Amino acid sequence: MVRAAVMLGNGQDVEVRDIPEPELEPHSALLDVELSEVCGTDVHLLHSRLSGVPYPIIPGHVSVGTLSKIRGSIVDINGLPLEEGDRVTFLDVHETCHSCWYCLVARASTRCPKRKVYGITYGLADGLTGGWAEKLYLKPGVKCLKLGDTPFEHFMAGGCALPTALHAVDQAQIRIGDTVLVLGSGPVGLSAIAFAVLSGASRVLCIGGPAPRLAIARQMGALQTCDIFTLNEDERLEWVRERTGGRGADVTIEAAGVPAAAVQAMRFTRDAGRVVVVGQYTDNGEVALNPHLDINRKHLEVKGCWGSDFSHFYRAVQVMAHETQSKAWIALTRKKFSLDQANEALAVVAGGKLGKALIDPRL
Amino acid sequence: MVRAAVMLGNGQDVEVRDIPEPELEPHSALLDVELSEVCGTDVHLLHSRLSGVPYPIIPGHVSVGTLSKIRGSIVDINGLPLEEGDRVTFLDVHETCHSCWYCLVARASTRCPKRKVYGITYGLADGLTGGWAEKLYLKPGVKCLKLGDTPFEHFMAGGCALPTALHAVDQAQIRIGDTVLVLGSGPVGLSAIAFAVLSGASRVLCIGGPAPRLAIARQMGALQTCDIFTLNEDERLEWVRERTGGRGADVTIEAAGVPAAAVQAMRFTRDAGRVVVVGQYTDNGEVALNPHLDINRKHLEVKGCWGSDFSHFYRAVQVMAHETQSKAWIALTRKKFSLDQANEALAVVAGGKLGKALIDPRL
Amino acid sequence: MVRAAVMLGNGQDVEVRDIPEPELEPHSALLDVELSEVCGTDVHLLHSRLSGVPYPIIPGHVSVGTLSKIRGSIVDINGLPLEEGDRVTFLDVHETCHSCWYCLVARASTRCPKRKVYGITYGLADGLTGGWAEKLYLKPGVKCLKLGDTPFEHFMAGGCALPTALHAVDQAQIRIGDTVLVLGSGPVGLSAIAFAVLSGASRVLCIGGPAPRLAIARQMGALQTCDIFTLNEDERLEWVRERTGGRGADVTIEAAGVPAAAVQAMRFTRDAGRVVVVGQYTDNGEVALNPHLDINRKHLEVKGCWGSDFSHFYRAVQVMAHETQSKAWIALTRKKFSLDQANEALAVVAGGKLGKALIDPRL
Amino acid sequence: MVRAAVMLGNGQDVEVRDIPEPELEPHSALLDVELSEVCGTDVHLLHSRLSGVPYPIIPGHVSVGTLSKIRGSIVDINGLPLEEGDRVTFLDVHETCHSCWYCLVARASTRCPKRKVYGITYGLADGLTGGWAEKLYLKPGVKCLKLGDTPFEHFMAGGCALPTALHAVDQAQIRIGDTVLVLGSGPVGLSAIAFAVLSGASRVLCIGGPAPRLAIARQMGALQTCDIFTLNEDERLEWVRERTGGRGADVTIEAAGVPAAAVQAMRFTRDAGRVVVVGQYTDNGEVALNPHLDINRKHLEVKGCWGSDFSHFYRAVQVMAHETQSKAWIALTRKKFSLDQANEALAVVAGGKLGKALIDPRL
Repeated sequence: MVRAAVMLGNGQDVEVRDIPEPELEPHSALLDVELSEVCGTDVHLLHSRLSGVPYPIIPGHVSVGTLSKIRGSIVDINGLPLEEGDRVTFLDVHETCHSCWYCLVARASTRCPKRKVYGITYGLADGLTGGWAEKLYLKPGVKCLKLGDTPFEHFMAGGCALPTALHAVDQAQIRIGDTVLVLGSGPVGLSAIAFAVLSGASRVLCIGGPAPRLAIARQMGALQTCDIFTLNEDERLEWVRERTGGRGADVTIEAAGVPAAAVQAMRFTRDAGRVVVVGQYTDNGEVALNPHLDINRKHLEVKGCWGSDFSHFYRAVQVMAHETQSKAWIALTRKKFSLDQANEALAVVAGGKLGKALIDPRL
Repeated sequence: MVRAAVMLGNGQDVEVRDIPEPELEPHSALLDVELSEVCGTDVHLLHSRLSGVPYPIIPGHVSVGTLSKIRGSIVDINGLPLEEGDRVTFLDVHETCHSCWYCLVARASTRCPKRKVYGITYGLADGLTGGWAEKLYLKPGVKCLKLGDTPFEHFMAGGCALPTALHAVDQAQIRIGDTVLVLGSGPVGLSAIAFAVLSGASRVLCIGGPAPRLAIARQMGALQTCDIFTLNEDERLEWVRERTGGRGADVTIEAAGVPAAAVQAMRFTRDAGRVVVVGQYTDNGEVALNPHLDINRKHLEVKGCWGSDFSHFYRAVQVMAHETQSKAWIALTRKKFSLDQANEALAVVAGGKLGKALIDPRL
Repeated sequence: MVRAAVMLGNGQDVEVRDIPEPELEPHSALLDVELSEVCGTDVHLLHSRLSGVPYPIIPGHVSVGTLSKIRGSIVDINGLPLEEGDRVTFLDVHETCHSCWYCLVARASTRCPKRKVYGITYGLADGLTGGWAEKLYLKPGVKCLKLGDTPFEHFMAGGCALPTALHAVDQAQIRIGDTVLVLGSGPVGLSAIAFAVLSGASRVLCIGGPAPRLAIARQMGALQTCDIFTLNEDERLEWVRERTGGRGADVTIEAAGVPAAAVQAMRFTRDAGRVVVVGQYTDNGEVALNPHLDINRKHLEVKGCWGSDFSHFYRAVQVMAHETQSKAWIALTRKKFSLDQANEALAVVAGGKLGKALIDPRL
Repeated sequence: MVRAAVMLGNGQDVEVRDIPEPELEPHSALLDVELSEVCGTDVHLLHSRLSGVPYPIIPGHVSVGTLSKIRGSIVDINGLPLEEGDRVTFLDVHETCHSCWYCLVARASTRCPKRKVYGITYGLADGLTGGWAEKLYLKPGVKCLKLGDTPFEHFMAGGCALPTALHAVDQAQIRIGDTVLVLGSGPVGLSAIAFAVLSGASRVLCIGGPAPRLAIARQMGALQTCDIFTLNEDERLEWVRERTGGRGADVTIEAAGVPAAAVQAMRFTRDAGRVVVVGQYTDNGEVALNPHLDINRKHLEVKGCWGSDFSHFYRAVQVMAHETQSKAWIALTRKKFSLDQANEALAVVAGGKLGKALIDPRL
């Protein structure tokens, strides 16, 4: 039997259950989980704020561990065989079809309607499909990446915000010397700060809060931060302009999540600049937009950024394996929780003060 | 003396005055105007709806004619001398500085604060600076283009919407086979339809009105049109989806001008598609936007498009000189008015039924 | 039994054989072939000029027909079921893995090492895997597209050069008003001419030959053509410059296939222009390049273009279904051959004078 | 009188002359030179290896100093007045016309035929137009940038290779996680290494030499270097493949200058990768290219990169003013020479062992 933390939704406590170890299909594998992330999405899941979730589920979409059993052969991205004992992570998004109009004609696989996600849209009925468990079932075709020498904890320091933020920074097309503004100091915003620095931004500014999160933002590379709770919108605009020759940021990455931030991102950006809207992951309603002032006359480019694909995940793994590039993330405070402490971990994440909470099922 | 139609603003009638012929500065020239456009902007100018206009002005920003006097030498884009007797048009935007941050660092010359426009932001105090006159003063450095064999009327068939619509279609990055939706059937929308067809769109749809404008839209190349006055927003969304496999247009060009159109453009576009907002030329207020549904989850790209630069103007001249490419525009109905009929011309343009109204100062 | 034309390579005559009708795997289908193309690649195949070909093979990579038998369900790109009796074409490239580094990280599926091609890298041992047969076996996962109302002959008017040329013209990023030069007047060059016109090029020039091919080039939309057999390289450079204000073409598409053409493409293009190299499909050796003059000082962009993917194929089908866009191709002369006339068809194609040769297995 | 080092070409010794201080035209200024660069181009100039140089000249194209006299007003990029006493640098390229086809239609101002360069294409006949002098004449319209708090020596640590390398790295479109290969370890190659690191490359490799230059390359951020004098071309290809999963670099920047390097850059790059050719500044002849293997089948993108414009210069100034970003350059060894030691400085630069040689006219 495998111990797993099971989530029922509607705010009910997560409970630890014993699940039978599955029969392996051909080209599937079992992962002995070492660490799995507890992230803000898990708090949303706890309270049933996302649609299409097949409760009960085993949470934990980003995880690392050791391959303990393989049926038949499975290969990595280079066609090389994976073997029992290999230390790996895997892309939580699975079943991207590569056969539909969005995958093949629009080349926008993040909009493929077939996508399933470990720990979110797979449920207990699909087997051991979340990382908050001693073992996780890697279905045939799940994309694994060997971690090489990267310590488990180092890769997990970034977590699931990593590929999303990397995708957003890709879209931002930052040039060396740019001033980049990040709205929001949650996990995606913090990773976006670090990626913006890695992409050559000469100055990264962050508007967010509360104060402890801004301290982390500066640690991730923000040159200056502005506490959203101390300045109103006009004052924040002024704060940005004072730091950008009166023009606004070259590029703004919205990772705040409140609708107003999407339009503020446009207003805080210079004419002919670029805005990436990545924080509006859930529907929080509407905001007033003046399309003449905010888009047209500004000659502004605005890019919605949804999810991530294997390339973002792959490159995030490169970064976390790199001694210098990964520094900002590895320096974040982390805390490990056992399966039995899952509810406690969720409470800590909901409180927003911790750098990174991890489930270690061996505790 | 030179006869010129002079506009005073605040809805007052345009009046014809005699203006002394100017002394030419070195490297300036006089143009004997053959035709000058009467466009929707001139109706806005009549009623003082634009800011920063130095009334009294001589309207007419896009004009053609013959160089009648040159002081010193002036050259064209290829460094070849222009000579008296040459048939030319010229870029109405002048004084782009090529020295400021927007021109040189952002490479966004349409956002250069120094730009001046013949017939709009130059006034009578600046001399013969509008096309509704027998002669027009080409200041030193104004960029002229020879018309070659292109009849004056053919170039004027497109008018000032031409470079703006071309800029918008550039931004739209249309690919062969795309379905393109144009919102609005005013001059920019109509030209955008024709440019979308020229850019390889397999299908161009247009939502606009009233019916006579939609007839012109189909003449410009729209495969199907939808009368905005007969369907509500939900029905229009349905109309688009029925024609796009349920997904929405690959690319939408908003050229309608009402704020709601900017957000409808996002909703009528497929996930991971592209929207160009070019119609919001004046401030008509706000509209409600849902950044989660309309931008982020759609993985949508939205581009504001402001004005045009010399390259758009130059390429528009190529198109109008091209027998096949210019056909859609040349087929539009046109009517010529004398300087004394300027008020009548403005009334006709305000009515919105005519293809193109032109001032012929020699009538 | 199914009659099929079988190619042995090394210049041996194609022979017609009876092949047993296969058992269908789940999610596979049988296509009653209506028409299949005979193209220049088939002539190369006849003479064993390509490597990795598993002779004996059934040639015919681009084909159309009617689904006559389906086992289980198969769906199209929109997830809609295909049914017996549907008129379809299909993408000849199959088994793109969507799992390797090139597919997923580089997003360059045309460089996926797993790709197989009907009629070229599938052989008789793989079953009815070429279109020169009464029936063709659609393996599970082969991507079919319904032809709707498009007559079989209209789609086949373009043939296999269509997606390749469309890919090349995509890479060329042609803008409205551009002057485009196409080197070569073979099938890819001719289709590139037509696609360049569809993409907004104001002028398309073609250097190729012999004279009858240039007549076809003009029919496809080339404004002017230059016979490569009558002018030497310097004279051809002069010919281009005379038509481009002394600067060279804005964009050049090399579809000639001889190594010298790749460098001439660079020389015939203006500074800061773009060259697409698509004609160098086989290894014909080296050519001398001056990287200072031909690339660096010119500030030139050169793009190699290899094969095509489903999006190019899909969009090519849109174009051929479009009354106006498909005109240039449909006007080409075509000739149909029976299976027994396959050798005759190959000889005609080798001669290079025909617009398009097709195998009709029902003749 | 102003002391200036004057170069006569043909290998003749540079000599120091007294030049009368010029009358200032309106909107011109005098710069008291603090430091001016001695670079490889100056060695080429000494030996008359460049065409179009109006000897005698005052060398020194990149310089810093203090504005000592201004006639009338001059403004910076933000429209703010420059004042006597301001510490500035300026863009050596002047007279870009912003009126010709290349400037306005192609938007490729580096190909503007009107460009003049201080210290290279301006000569003594044009006045104090090089930095190897106590004072330098800033003609009307020359673009100055204030240095703020940046020490003179810090900005000069990068020198003229800085904007060129930044332009090349812009063209390289490096993504976070990429492996970038730089060919050449001269000034442009070294700066390209540092900019590639700043742009998010996870690994930068360099092939160059001799050994002391490779030590500098590693100091600039190259993870591993390969001595071109110890491995032949096949071995170097193998060296790259061993470090790139057998595929080649994602992006290669050629900054070596020998023709063979341009084609090796293609061979050392992965399929569907990108090559920037920036090192072929002078004509060193031809190299054999196989367009099938090196471009077409590789689906490769090759970009020639010529010179730089104001935006590259401006952003280079941002980088050098940035404490962290400028570190790699500031750590380079530098040596100052007096005007009288100019010939000695040239000899040292020709020897290639020094990080950076500077003329300090006050010594």
